[in-house]
Amino acid sequence: MQENAGGKLSSLGEFGLIDRIRSRFQTPSGVVGIGDDCAVLPQREGRDTLVSTDMLVEGTHFLSGDIAPYDLGWKSAAVNLSDIAAMGGRPTATFLSLALPARLDAGWVEQFMDGYADVSGRFGAALLGGDTTASPDRICINVAVLGECPSGTARLRSHARSTDLVCVTSPLGDSAAGLRAILEGVERDADVRKLIERHYRPTPRIDEGLELASNLCVHAMTDISDGIGSDLEHILEASGSVAEIDVDAIPLSAGLQRVCKRFGWDPLELAVCGGEDYELLFTCSRQAEMVLTTPHFVIGRILPDRPGQGPRIRWRGDASTFAGRLGEARGFDHFKKG
Amino acid sequence: MQENAGGKLSSLGEFGLIDRIRSRFQTPSGVVGIGDDCAVLPQREGRDTLVSTDMLVEGTHFLSGDIAPYDLGWKSAAVNLSDIAAMGGRPTATFLSLALPARLDAGWVEQFMDGYADVSGRFGAALLGGDTTASPDRICINVAVLGECPSGTARLRSHARSTDLVCVTSPLGDSAAGLRAILEGVERDADVRKLIERHYRPTPRIDEGLELASNLCVHAMTDISDGIGSDLEHILEASGSVAEIDVDAIPLSAGLQRVCKRFGWDPLELAVCGGEDYELLFTCSRQAEMVLTTPHFVIGRILPDRPGQGPRIRWRGDASTFAGRLGEARGFDHFKKG
Repeated sequence: MQENAGGKLSSLGEFGLIDRIRSRFQTPSGVVGIGDDCAVLPQREGRDTLVSTDMLVEGTHFLSGDIAPYDLGWKSAAVNLSDIAAMGGRPTATFLSLALPARLDAGWVEQFMDGYADVSGRFGAALLGGDTTASPDRICINVAVLGECPSGTARLRSHARSTDLVCVTSPLGDSAAGLRAILEGVERDADVRKLIERHYRPTPRIDEGLELASNLCVHAMTDISDGIGSDLEHILEASGSVAEIDVDAIPLSAGLQRVCKRFGWDPLELAVCGGEDYELLFTCSRQAEMVLTTPHFVIGRILPDRPGQGPRIRWRGDASTFAGRLGEARGFDHFKKG
Repeated sequence: MQENAGGKLSSLGEFGLIDRIRSRFQTPSGVVGIGDDCAVLPQREGRDTLVSTDMLVEGTHFLSGDIAPYDLGWKSAAVNLSDIAAMGGRPTATFLSLALPARLDAGWVEQFMDGYADVSGRFGAALLGGDTTASPDRICINVAVLGECPSGTARLRSHARSTDLVCVTSPLGDSAAGLRAILEGVERDADVRKLIERHYRPTPRIDEGLELASNLCVHAMTDISDGIGSDLEHILEASGSVAEIDVDAIPLSAGLQRVCKRFGWDPLELAVCGGEDYELLFTCSRQAEMVLTTPHFVIGRILPDRPGQGPRIRWRGDASTFAGRLGEARGFDHFKKG
């Protein structure tokens, strides 16, 4: 197999490519994986199946000159696994569709699959199927992910309750700053490299999600893909709630603050409007928060009632640096900004 | 909503588009569908979950000037549902990822979803999630489909048994002839229009698959997406078998024969190497075949042993018109021919 590692995709062929991908993953016993019309997974009573899917298109989500194939493979799997984490579930399987232009070689696919397999393996997700095809020019990647949780325990966006605290699992804005550093081509010192790594290799918060979901008083949960300005809005909308967020409580890493100071960027704008943190945003009762062992930061609370027609997020503190941007577009909207 | 029906996608926005898509589908009770990080489906004891995914890329699988958005929506769902049919399962849900260039308008999406919803609804598959994003130029579509069957009853490619008969559910080659008619721009009389419809609007053989899978002596099954020359090879490879196929028994529709005669095309080449029939190819015992109520055609049989190293398919009759093409590439291989 190594002999061919630098070969063109056209000489490998679709079935050669599938064999190569298949060799990287083990299929769990009792499961039919890659190689038939469908994968077959036994169902278990008392469990719910979780399913999500995400597409990454070259030119919209990434530029292939910027991102290493390993990182692209990692990120393709990670952003999907993150959706399972957001429900408090455990991932079981992924299904990978790849449309690849002829300019790529088999070595590119090897590295892509290295990254994909590393993050999938870390969280126990088997690759059980997919589709490989030629693309006239751009790389297009779609991942569908399956997970499971005990019946009725999935943490929905609609579960926020009055007086809940609003929390996040980590400082925000690192990933958005990493993207900005890439786009502006700034010099890459240790701080900048760390931010870029947070952008290219997000860690899906599976363990944290499972831990949080084991606490009955953790109510609504989502992952931060578009920025809390947008993702919290989704929770509030689904729950019919209003929240007050303390701008000064939004956690910012020391590295982000140093880099922002150096380049004159606003760290709060990156943290609130940036997105792609893939950290968890959740609400829980005050009592639950006191006993949570999962590292987290309290950034605000759900207000007792929905008072009138104002905005769903009330910012406490100085929101002037990002409020304009939030009004215009909450987080990413690929059709408007892509 | 109608006011906006001709509007640009950029004015509709990603969430507007999702709302529009969501309004077309009903979510089954007890299920969380579109609108959270994942869909949530209750699992049932004694059932197996079936999962498959397929990607369609503009310029590789279709040309947007040739195919109506309704047909593209229909086909995107149908080719995935066909994979569930191929296992003898019942579809439960689909997940649709759409990357759309800015040149399309909201009316295009409406028509696409009409076709998608019509074929999904006919076979009881709910749309429970997906992803919508901008694409710099080409349309890219990915569908992931879930289905189910009683535990252990999925019809795998590896289940063919010695002396089984090899059968197909319908005449073959119509779809490939329809594609050729499109590519060559021939005049579209009633026969040609029928072939083109078979290409653009294949019917997933869900009912036939369920009926066949209810018979214990129906063994291996797959759907014909690449042409029997390739798809039968997959069954034989997985089962470690060799088959003899009677060239004269391959069923050809009267319309296909008339059109081929008119344009000097070889109907057998289209039937064996063409693909995209989305009919079922299965093997069963002789006894089972006699009592099958599902319409079908016997085209050959699995030979008692695997004799030596020859080809896995032995053609009985005149295979000279397509044998050359088979040797060079069995069915479609998108990396070689796409």
